[in-house]
Amino acid sequence: MTVHALEAARRLAPRFAARAAEHDRDGSFPAEDFRDLREAGLFGLMVPRSLGGLGASFGEYAAVATELARGNGATALVFNMHASVTGALGAVTEELAEALGVPDEALAARDRLLTAAAQGSWYAVAMSERGAGARLSQLSTVYEATGAGWHLKGSKTFCSGAGHADGYLVAARSAADQSVVSQFLVPADPEGLIVEPTWDALGMRATSSHDLHLDVTVPTDRLLGGVEGLALVVAQLMPHWLVASYAAVYVGVARAAIDAAAEHLNARNLAGLPAVRARLGRADAATAAAQLVVAEAARRVDETPGDAETNRWVWRAKLLAGTTAAEVAASMLEAAGTSATRRGHPLERLYRDARCGSLHPATSDVCADWLGIAALGGDPDRDGSAPRW
Amino acid sequence: MTVHALEAARRLAPRFAARAAEHDRDGSFPAEDFRDLREAGLFGLMVPRSLGGLGASFGEYAAVATELARGNGATALVFNMHASVTGALGAVTEELAEALGVPDEALAARDRLLTAAAQGSWYAVAMSERGAGARLSQLSTVYEATGAGWHLKGSKTFCSGAGHADGYLVAARSAADQSVVSQFLVPADPEGLIVEPTWDALGMRATSSHDLHLDVTVPTDRLLGGVEGLALVVAQLMPHWLVASYAAVYVGVARAAIDAAAEHLNARNLAGLPAVRARLGRADAATAAAQLVVAEAARRVDETPGDAETNRWVWRAKLLAGTTAAEVAASMLEAAGTSATRRGHPLERLYRDARCGSLHPATSDVCADWLGIAALGGDPDRDGSAPRW
Amino acid sequence: MTVHALEAARRLAPRFAARAAEHDRDGSFPAEDFRDLREAGLFGLMVPRSLGGLGASFGEYAAVATELARGNGATALVFNMHASVTGALGAVTEELAEALGVPDEALAARDRLLTAAAQGSWYAVAMSERGAGARLSQLSTVYEATGAGWHLKGSKTFCSGAGHADGYLVAARSAADQSVVSQFLVPADPEGLIVEPTWDALGMRATSSHDLHLDVTVPTDRLLGGVEGLALVVAQLMPHWLVASYAAVYVGVARAAIDAAAEHLNARNLAGLPAVRARLGRADAATAAAQLVVAEAARRVDETPGDAETNRWVWRAKLLAGTTAAEVAASMLEAAGTSATRRGHPLERLYRDARCGSLHPATSDVCADWLGIAALGGDPDRDGSAPRW
Amino acid sequence: MTVHALEAARRLAPRFAARAAEHDRDGSFPAEDFRDLREAGLFGLMVPRSLGGLGASFGEYAAVATELARGNGATALVFNMHASVTGALGAVTEELAEALGVPDEALAARDRLLTAAAQGSWYAVAMSERGAGARLSQLSTVYEATGAGWHLKGSKTFCSGAGHADGYLVAARSAADQSVVSQFLVPADPEGLIVEPTWDALGMRATSSHDLHLDVTVPTDRLLGGVEGLALVVAQLMPHWLVASYAAVYVGVARAAIDAAAEHLNARNLAGLPAVRARLGRADAATAAAQLVVAEAARRVDETPGDAETNRWVWRAKLLAGTTAAEVAASMLEAAGTSATRRGHPLERLYRDARCGSLHPATSDVCADWLGIAALGGDPDRDGSAPRW
Repeated sequence: MTVHALEAARRLAPRFAARAAEHDRDGSFPAEDFRDLREAGLFGLMVPRSLGGLGASFGEYAAVATELARGNGATALVFNMHASVTGALGAVTEELAEALGVPDEALAARDRLLTAAAQGSWYAVAMSERGAGARLSQLSTVYEATGAGWHLKGSKTFCSGAGHADGYLVAARSAADQSVVSQFLVPADPEGLIVEPTWDALGMRATSSHDLHLDVTVPTDRLLGGVEGLALVVAQLMPHWLVASYAAVYVGVARAAIDAAAEHLNARNLAGLPAVRARLGRADAATAAAQLVVAEAARRVDETPGDAETNRWVWRAKLLAGTTAAEVAASMLEAAGTSATRRGHPLERLYRDARCGSLHPATSDVCADWLGIAALGGDPDRDGSAPRW
Repeated sequence: MTVHALEAARRLAPRFAARAAEHDRDGSFPAEDFRDLREAGLFGLMVPRSLGGLGASFGEYAAVATELARGNGATALVFNMHASVTGALGAVTEELAEALGVPDEALAARDRLLTAAAQGSWYAVAMSERGAGARLSQLSTVYEATGAGWHLKGSKTFCSGAGHADGYLVAARSAADQSVVSQFLVPADPEGLIVEPTWDALGMRATSSHDLHLDVTVPTDRLLGGVEGLALVVAQLMPHWLVASYAAVYVGVARAAIDAAAEHLNARNLAGLPAVRARLGRADAATAAAQLVVAEAARRVDETPGDAETNRWVWRAKLLAGTTAAEVAASMLEAAGTSATRRGHPLERLYRDARCGSLHPATSDVCADWLGIAALGGDPDRDGSAPRW
Repeated sequence: MTVHALEAARRLAPRFAARAAEHDRDGSFPAEDFRDLREAGLFGLMVPRSLGGLGASFGEYAAVATELARGNGATALVFNMHASVTGALGAVTEELAEALGVPDEALAARDRLLTAAAQGSWYAVAMSERGAGARLSQLSTVYEATGAGWHLKGSKTFCSGAGHADGYLVAARSAADQSVVSQFLVPADPEGLIVEPTWDALGMRATSSHDLHLDVTVPTDRLLGGVEGLALVVAQLMPHWLVASYAAVYVGVARAAIDAAAEHLNARNLAGLPAVRARLGRADAATAAAQLVVAEAARRVDETPGDAETNRWVWRAKLLAGTTAAEVAASMLEAAGTSATRRGHPLERLYRDARCGSLHPATSDVCADWLGIAALGGDPDRDGSAPRW
Repeated sequence: MTVHALEAARRLAPRFAARAAEHDRDGSFPAEDFRDLREAGLFGLMVPRSLGGLGASFGEYAAVATELARGNGATALVFNMHASVTGALGAVTEELAEALGVPDEALAARDRLLTAAAQGSWYAVAMSERGAGARLSQLSTVYEATGAGWHLKGSKTFCSGAGHADGYLVAARSAADQSVVSQFLVPADPEGLIVEPTWDALGMRATSSHDLHLDVTVPTDRLLGGVEGLALVVAQLMPHWLVASYAAVYVGVARAAIDAAAEHLNARNLAGLPAVRARLGRADAATAAAQLVVAEAARRVDETPGDAETNRWVWRAKLLAGTTAAEVAASMLEAAGTSATRRGHPLERLYRDARCGSLHPATSDVCADWLGIAALGGDPDRDGSAPRW
């Protein structure tokens, strides 16, 4: 089943690659890529088989994401958000649901969302806010109960896929109690949801990571988990979706840069230059290492989720994928030379896309701090200078 | 006089900076910047005072170029080509002219070109060709004498300022004798000169470094030096204009990145983060060092031109300015974070501009090879694996 | 069985660590470490179980070597040579033996050597020569058949464990035919074998990698494989023992440096310094990545030996382990500060030991070239500028 | 005069180099080097001409120190401490003395110390203490006035030249008032001064940077400046002697590493390897840049001492010299290969010596923080997380 998913990703990647330059140039959303993903059944990748999905593990997700990113990193990044939503929802076992006090109706509502995904819907994430970044504890979007359900009000930024998704996972804090943060699945076009097309950035330009303004009311069953205040709990239970799921994408970007450089250099008969060979060789080794680390983190997430050692691998994956992609793409562009800087050349785009990996939360500098505390025997989720979430 | 030039450059830089985002976005030529340069008399920077210019030294040029680049690296890069033409022409002393067999008429023609520059004309350079790069020994553009003067035929690439300059320095090889390479000053709009707007690149987007197709005839006095075959001689006599004049520009780009990051971080109250401070500190030291190396190379070019030790400094300047700019801009963007990757943010542009420094000939890898041969006691102009020019 | 081996390695490492400073200071051989290895049965690690050994895979070897190196890298490096000899001998299957034309008597002789290892003998390798390095094709040590067996004459360098091993694997070329290179197992103290104590080096000081002067005659059955000319064939079949077996050792050295730095910093209450945490965090991630790459290379050597993709992992492992160890140890010493540079402090030794990894053949620069050719689609065993072996 | 000093340094360097291996091996003090320095009159380098010295500027000191370090970095490092003492004493102008309230007798005492230096005495510095490092504000050595003069009691560490100098500059805090820190010039062998030979370190092994135990009484005129509490004032006035005087030494070490690598590689006919050339080329450029930065810092110290911009150059010099030396030496050893790791080979020693530069206070990480604050527009002497002195 998931071998099928990986094969599908490999089959789609060249199509994504063929469209990537245009979407990058225009900052347009890769709608055809998403049609391909739907047709290949990949929106159900993280949906349990019992609900019609492919039931993939986190490790299988990571392999698929890397392959998609070899085609177009931006497409893979938007897909990653959908995978995060469905993956986190799907990972709530009955035991966990009971422990968290999730009522049966909420599980049924969850199943409806997952079934819809398996049938071709996809979701975006609206978490970050200007000023707060991705830290849940700093949000200013608020919600309150009304007779009709929940009313949400606030503004989100960096919402990848905004205007194209079938629904949005929105994090908000309770107007009644500031310390309570909950998540809602807001449908695509209720009254009061406005997409402001602000996304026009250096790299990953096709993600449509626009601003989202919310002044909406959603039905009661759109509160994820059915009880308030679960957002931070879930963040702590599943750091991989917050920290490391990007990593797989950036490994794919790095590998795409090496492949593009090799093709460029061979076409120009420059493969014999020693400086070029040294650059390719070091880039290849670094990228292979980052890919292994992502796979190892994913394997442990699947086998021993939440374990302290698992979490270390999750943070290592984020750090190494981000730094490696940026360094590799910069070196590959230098190996290929000025002619590869023309717009439309894959390396020109990959150089810009690759720079973004270290900047996604948790940034590389934050990862290094987290890992340093762990290596020194401290508790990195507690000893950091700022709240992690 | 040149203090005046440096002050003028400092005065103009903020104006260039204010226009930089627009020209970067559109890939349009910074025509107003060039109007400012003309009005400030800076087209005469390298023109001897006896011909109405400012008579600047190479060191003074470097300081001016760095300041201009703090405003807009692309403008400074185009200006650099004009400075190269006028600087090289102006540096041909009577002794050298005699040694090279330059006839009096050619000196008079040279003086007319320089006088025109002092009065507000500026020149572009059309040297590179697809396939040959910037190596004079590999050119395929040819010329031959006709009754009406010289006929030139061929195509050039990466001609910064194409379509805007008042004249082009064109390198071509003799149809009669392949080993003879000469240079001509072709006026802006003879019949048969076509600018093909091919320049649409990662960085330095405002340079209009388009392709130039030539099938033109120019008057006899447009052969620079008046005798054929001087191009390679001049290249060897003045490697600084071929190798290091870019370097001053990239130092300015690196400094602009630090300044932009500091402003961004202070505005967001993030100056207290230790990781941010470490990035700024290391970037500052590296940029200051590169600036000193450029100044030292320039000082030696002025005092002991052509000296072996002078040339080592010239190559060091090229290597360090290129690598430093790219590393500094990448680190500053990482320090500033995702919000600085929005198009229109100075760091977004500077990150792209900065990557180009190592790619200009001689590339950083070629510089490292050259310097390594010198450090090992060899003759770097001879022992390299490929012809340098 | 091999879980037992890994546990034994973990149990021994602290003992090795306790003795490491003394052997490093004096350049003395860690004889007690080798007594411990013998008693733990680890000389039989790579010996097939049918001959009384532990029958470990290459992957199991790598895990054991890393653990031993966390105690003392020098001990692990000498042990590595013994593992190479026994591992390569043990890996000659009946099919391979038949394909290579190995006679039955040679297999019986091979079995005697392996049985002896399982019972507590260990072997060193005498391959490198001054001038030739480790390239088999450049050796000047010669052999010829005599009535009494084989007569070998020549000098070897960098023979780790010289003067302490129970036998030496010696590579030599045929006096009769320069293109024929064979290997012999020379016993520890025949007449004419002289150990010249030349090893007094920056790092890995306890390996006793002295010079060996040979003017010896060995019995007929000491020609490995029983037919001449197998040395290069074996080198090509088992590049992992020549290229990557060191890698596991240097991963252990890097991890030991992180552990020593953490202990040092915690003892001085310096774990809260942000710069220190960033150093530890980045070092941890890099070392974890290198360890994974070594394990992946080893896994593939066990599953698909000789495969092109397997060999790429082997070279990646060598490159990354060497560069990572040197960078990590340098950064850890900087994190710990001047007080950790006192002789006797583990970091002082580890900084020196770690520098050696990139220098073992194939050096990091050679690895980068090999990997670059592969990434460019070439044949790295053929397209390099110099013979690899 | 100082051209003479620079020539003397160049003349002495090869002699120092010839003795360096032996002193490094034994950890013995380079007494003959110091005899050479005395005979060349270099103990008077920083002594005003009016007192019989050479009256060198800080810039001239830096040039001399770099040359001496090309011979033996350890010798140059001990010499640096003497230069610091005499340089700081000599830099107290009459105006400054008046402003600080220095009585005439103290100036006369100062002149006696400087005259003695010009006549062949040299001084060491005993500032650092275990736990306090080099921070004056954290010292535990105390002094109090007695009838016979001043009584000092405490222990110092890292006192370069201990047991060989003619006097020690000792920093101590007043027993009466903990906030008052003063400096004394303690003669070489009063009763109660014990040198404990603790120095046995990774690099710079010939500096005899032993521990010093003090329970001594010195005459009244040995209080530097004649009034108590001047130590911190002087530290702030002359940060160059505390921060950057080491820098010149490490530039010399880096250059020595390049020279040694070039000699080694040429002798083995390996200068043609592209990877080797790239390493040498990049090392050469980096070292040349660091040397310029040190010279620029020194020039500004001479011209505009204490200026904010001068101090930035001082910290840049410390940062770049330390990091460059370590990176260059590591790369040169990798270029030269295993044969250069034998003890006695210059690169083996230089690799160890070079690592120490970043560790001297202010460490590279502290420098990066200081410079980052400055680049962000803050006050680096105040905004750091810990007291600088």
